[in-house]
Amino acid sequence: MAAGRKKVSVIGAGNVGATVAFHVAQQGYADVTLLDLPDDLTLERPRKTGSMAQGKALDLNQVSPIVGYDGRLSGTSDYADTAGSDVVVITSGRPRSPGMSREDLLAVNADIVASVASQAVAQSPDAVYIVVSNPLDAMCHVALKATGLPSERVIGQAGVLDSTRYRNYIAAALKISVEDIQAYVLGGHGDQMVPVRSLTTVGGIPIQKWVETGKITEEQLQKIEDDTRQGGGILTNLIGTSAWYAPGVATAEMVEAVLLDRKRILAVTVLLSGEYGVSDLYFGAPTKLGAAGAEEIYDLSKLVTLTDVELAGIKESAGKVQGTVDSLKELGKL
Amino acid sequence: MAAGRKKVSVIGAGNVGATVAFHVAQQGYADVTLLDLPDDLTLERPRKTGSMAQGKALDLNQVSPIVGYDGRLSGTSDYADTAGSDVVVITSGRPRSPGMSREDLLAVNADIVASVASQAVAQSPDAVYIVVSNPLDAMCHVALKATGLPSERVIGQAGVLDSTRYRNYIAAALKISVEDIQAYVLGGHGDQMVPVRSLTTVGGIPIQKWVETGKITEEQLQKIEDDTRQGGGILTNLIGTSAWYAPGVATAEMVEAVLLDRKRILAVTVLLSGEYGVSDLYFGAPTKLGAAGAEEIYDLSKLVTLTDVELAGIKESAGKVQGTVDSLKELGKL
Amino acid sequence: MAAGRKKVSVIGAGNVGATVAFHVAQQGYADVTLLDLPDDLTLERPRKTGSMAQGKALDLNQVSPIVGYDGRLSGTSDYADTAGSDVVVITSGRPRSPGMSREDLLAVNADIVASVASQAVAQSPDAVYIVVSNPLDAMCHVALKATGLPSERVIGQAGVLDSTRYRNYIAAALKISVEDIQAYVLGGHGDQMVPVRSLTTVGGIPIQKWVETGKITEEQLQKIEDDTRQGGGILTNLIGTSAWYAPGVATAEMVEAVLLDRKRILAVTVLLSGEYGVSDLYFGAPTKLGAAGAEEIYDLSKLVTLTDVELAGIKESAGKVQGTVDSLKELGKL
Amino acid sequence: MAAGRKKVSVIGAGNVGATVAFHVAQQGYADVTLLDLPDDLTLERPRKTGSMAQGKALDLNQVSPIVGYDGRLSGTSDYADTAGSDVVVITSGRPRSPGMSREDLLAVNADIVASVASQAVAQSPDAVYIVVSNPLDAMCHVALKATGLPSERVIGQAGVLDSTRYRNYIAAALKISVEDIQAYVLGGHGDQMVPVRSLTTVGGIPIQKWVETGKITEEQLQKIEDDTRQGGGILTNLIGTSAWYAPGVATAEMVEAVLLDRKRILAVTVLLSGEYGVSDLYFGAPTKLGAAGAEEIYDLSKLVTLTDVELAGIKESAGKVQGTVDSLKELGKL
Repeated sequence: MAAGRKKVSVIGAGNVGATVAFHVAQQGYADVTLLDLPDDLTLERPRKTGSMAQGKALDLNQVSPIVGYDGRLSGTSDYADTAGSDVVVITSGRPRSPGMSREDLLAVNADIVASVASQAVAQSPDAVYIVVSNPLDAMCHVALKATGLPSERVIGQAGVLDSTRYRNYIAAALKISVEDIQAYVLGGHGDQMVPVRSLTTVGGIPIQKWVETGKITEEQLQKIEDDTRQGGGILTNLIGTSAWYAPGVATAEMVEAVLLDRKRILAVTVLLSGEYGVSDLYFGAPTKLGAAGAEEIYDLSKLVTLTDVELAGIKESAGKVQGTVDSLKELGKL
Repeated sequence: MAAGRKKVSVIGAGNVGATVAFHVAQQGYADVTLLDLPDDLTLERPRKTGSMAQGKALDLNQVSPIVGYDGRLSGTSDYADTAGSDVVVITSGRPRSPGMSREDLLAVNADIVASVASQAVAQSPDAVYIVVSNPLDAMCHVALKATGLPSERVIGQAGVLDSTRYRNYIAAALKISVEDIQAYVLGGHGDQMVPVRSLTTVGGIPIQKWVETGKITEEQLQKIEDDTRQGGGILTNLIGTSAWYAPGVATAEMVEAVLLDRKRILAVTVLLSGEYGVSDLYFGAPTKLGAAGAEEIYDLSKLVTLTDVELAGIKESAGKVQGTVDSLKELGKL
Repeated sequence: MAAGRKKVSVIGAGNVGATVAFHVAQQGYADVTLLDLPDDLTLERPRKTGSMAQGKALDLNQVSPIVGYDGRLSGTSDYADTAGSDVVVITSGRPRSPGMSREDLLAVNADIVASVASQAVAQSPDAVYIVVSNPLDAMCHVALKATGLPSERVIGQAGVLDSTRYRNYIAAALKISVEDIQAYVLGGHGDQMVPVRSLTTVGGIPIQKWVETGKITEEQLQKIEDDTRQGGGILTNLIGTSAWYAPGVATAEMVEAVLLDRKRILAVTVLLSGEYGVSDLYFGAPTKLGAAGAEEIYDLSKLVTLTDVELAGIKESAGKVQGTVDSLKELGKL
Repeated sequence: MAAGRKKVSVIGAGNVGATVAFHVAQQGYADVTLLDLPDDLTLERPRKTGSMAQGKALDLNQVSPIVGYDGRLSGTSDYADTAGSDVVVITSGRPRSPGMSREDLLAVNADIVASVASQAVAQSPDAVYIVVSNPLDAMCHVALKATGLPSERVIGQAGVLDSTRYRNYIAAALKISVEDIQAYVLGGHGDQMVPVRSLTTVGGIPIQKWVETGKITEEQLQKIEDDTRQGGGILTNLIGTSAWYAPGVATAEMVEAVLLDRKRILAVTVLLSGEYGVSDLYFGAPTKLGAAGAEEIYDLSKLVTLTDVELAGIKESAGKVQGTVDSLKELGKL
């Protein structure tokens, strides 16, 4: 008999969670369990019966006859239904509400993520955990502690999203296919992220050469890098809520890399131990992603010649992430 | 030089509109313009600048480097940007708010759809128009009048969604792949729709045989048909708002049938002229869908032996749609 | 850690085998081992070093950077490399050469398939075996005996190919999308196969109604059914060798149904035990295909009202298959 | 009405031609005409009636019900059936037979390609022509002359294939996903091609760094570059005939870039006019490929710092191509 199907659980049935679930389910080789928490219900628009997770799972299953995969998504509020997952994605967390301080939000989401992670790991001790909740880097620390797993199996999604935004902005500016733009965004998630211009290529040609030959101006490129850093905020302003398509698909790409043991090199938020001169801190870095999770971390500061701006950016970014982690410790959450 | 790319405009940047846009754009052969109306802004969560259409188009473009298509979606509030579309999808309309009567809603949405359709047709007189706004059958009449186009180019999406829901429920009950369930749901969209059990097959075998051999009970099948009829409501109860994944993908399937001239036979809402004993009424019927729009309508009442229940259901459904159309006329909207 | 990848071995690196390998590998969730036999080398055009299986595996791996799956195909002549497969596809066998009698060919291919099957099952005792070698029905018997496996795990590919041919001819004649043509071809593979017109629908409407309404003539439909029966021969005449695209993709669809436990209902060659009034004979019948192989066989003669022509066709077809099986027994091969 | 479907004609129905046809047709947005020449018939295995092109088109159409695109491939020997193509792919040509000198082959294929190109352009004067026939660079010159088209619409496929081979070898050696290997192979097609190590990256990191950190040895990498140069020969030795999967899919990728106006940057064989210090010579170079054909050629020798080895390789490669072109002129073919 053929070995069983893969199983993925997505905790949090908001827009990002549902997008992850959809894109994984469409591949056809994995069952998807979408779980939302009763205590999240207050955050969502009113419903009469059942849960949002059940509703979205049903809606996504109803897509399947058209698209031609077998929809095997289920919605639940019971962690037992997530048992035996190969990958668990954690998207739970609150947005910042008016009058809420940054620290308040940190404490609230740390509690949510700790609760989710500890309940999930009891059901799926062998899974790879992908954290999407914000503030991302800090929440990875929380999940690592709550699961007690080795750090290669607790990772965060930030850089895949940031990188795809960077690539898309460049493609649009140059009117070149997105397929031929290569770029990484490293460091912490948020304003302090670092688009690594040194490694950015268009058709294999360093982006700096496109500036020098006048295809794109230095100002345009700087604006693209600024827009990338503020990518989430720009979208929130336009949409009125956080974006979810690119965040969800970016996460699904990481899930696929693990499930299919693809050995992708993606910008993943991983626990550093000396790379980039940083230790015991979650940080975005190029990482080999396969069935075992984060199988290898590449230290660009040793491998390539980063510019002073990039090196300073990395240092500053690490400092900010460290600050958040310190806050968490002071709050007794780590 | 290769002939130009296809162009699709989606009016209304809510969840259904964005899902249509995403699924069309992913195919890679069409540019997609997502338009939302300034007067819709009050319906949505607050945003600081720009429009929701711009935000969702950007989010969807940012998916493209990961998935590998060239994201060429744009968001706008200016109909001029929709000029020269091959297909226009109309999703605009309000949900029923508390204290609003059914007739109030009908009048409001008739005005919205008439406004949208007349502005769109001025830009894209050669397009096929696919209406998704509710109440669907009535809104098709409004769009037909507003555009002044021949009826084969003004059609509605309802039956593809209803049919995929019916198929998915059967697949889940029998634990058989969705690919091998064939079914049609005809008639008006809403409680009065008619799942045509006579034509429903599983693996090519009539569903009635699966009942007779005890694979599924008559009660289960009736519940599935009831759930199909109330498909939208079930999801709204669970999610807290209307579903959008299956509605959006169902619409995208119709868009594809037109753009690629596929000659699909799908359950489409079309203007009948005598079929099923009905004239001058939009109604869901199996229809050949190609580049010219609704290229042929199949009258099942003449082609196959429908049951008395089905025939009565069709009659009742037609009566209800006629009632809504009459209301529209009384309101001076048709 | 995520559970391992699936594994498929394809025995025989001719055109059909390579097509199966390609289509399975492109899905991304399975490794594929392509094995050809040293004693097959004489059948192929001369090569200087290595094996054709290695060459085709390399060519197919070289596709992967363009298409975006990780090519993990390998070519070998050593059965040990097929160990632990989830599915084994057997395509080995000789074409009929000039001066070779039908019985000679039967004996030669029985020996090849018996050799292949017994060596493969020693490495992959838990796999589902899909036989593609001709004469198909007889070779299924040989593989069943050689592997000693339960019959649900030794099945043959014929009806998926014959059905897709039938569907494509109908689609072309009516100018309707292939997606909306449903049809089964049952019985033995070869001239005696039975296109089941009773179950053939176009857009869910019985094909007979399309005849009655003049969309297609009875003569056209009979010619289509004749062409379907002689499908392989027609292609051989045109191409100068056996066709391989549709045969390969048809087989890949069966592989996928097993690997993903899809519960497809496909026309599969299975060992009947009473269905259709036939016992202990491999025969094409609608079958639920999942991880366990042939999970359920549907006896259309009890489920639907077949025409006298169809019933007679099935009887005749069974007789011919039985004749070949008897020949094999006389040859001491069963 | 939606604008028409795209049209692609593939001249030559051998394995490469059929693979191109299949991969284009599967995308669903283009009709494909496969043409083979009566005078090619002697080259193929015997058939009784019709043409190989008809046989392969039929086999490929028969795939379509399974895969779910509408197979609209046709086989013909009449150039009139190729009229109005958006892209024409020329794969015709003979392999070198025993006793045939290199110059003999050159003359024979020049005649074939000239005949094909002039007949095709009479039917499709607005198409982009993609030459695949060998010797590739020389055949591009022949096609340019025979069509009389501007050079941006007469291009050759070589570098996409050579680059995918290079990428696949590196991925296999490092056990990293093919998706994260970027590389170009430039120059003439054949032993003189130039894998541009300076631009080769793995996960965005220059390949040289992977050598320096011991992930791959200099010897391994040199062998990979040698194997890439001799890619075709290695496969021919193994398979006993030229490879076709990667060549065909590589060509299909170019077709797609043109049909969808993708603005891909691919290694394309284009007529240089000063780039790389070369003029009036077809040569492989990174090129922006869109609806107009070769829309821009990038001169890496000015954009990046190539190594002396690479520069010398380019010079040598250009010399060899020039030699073949000179031979063609002496033969009176240009």
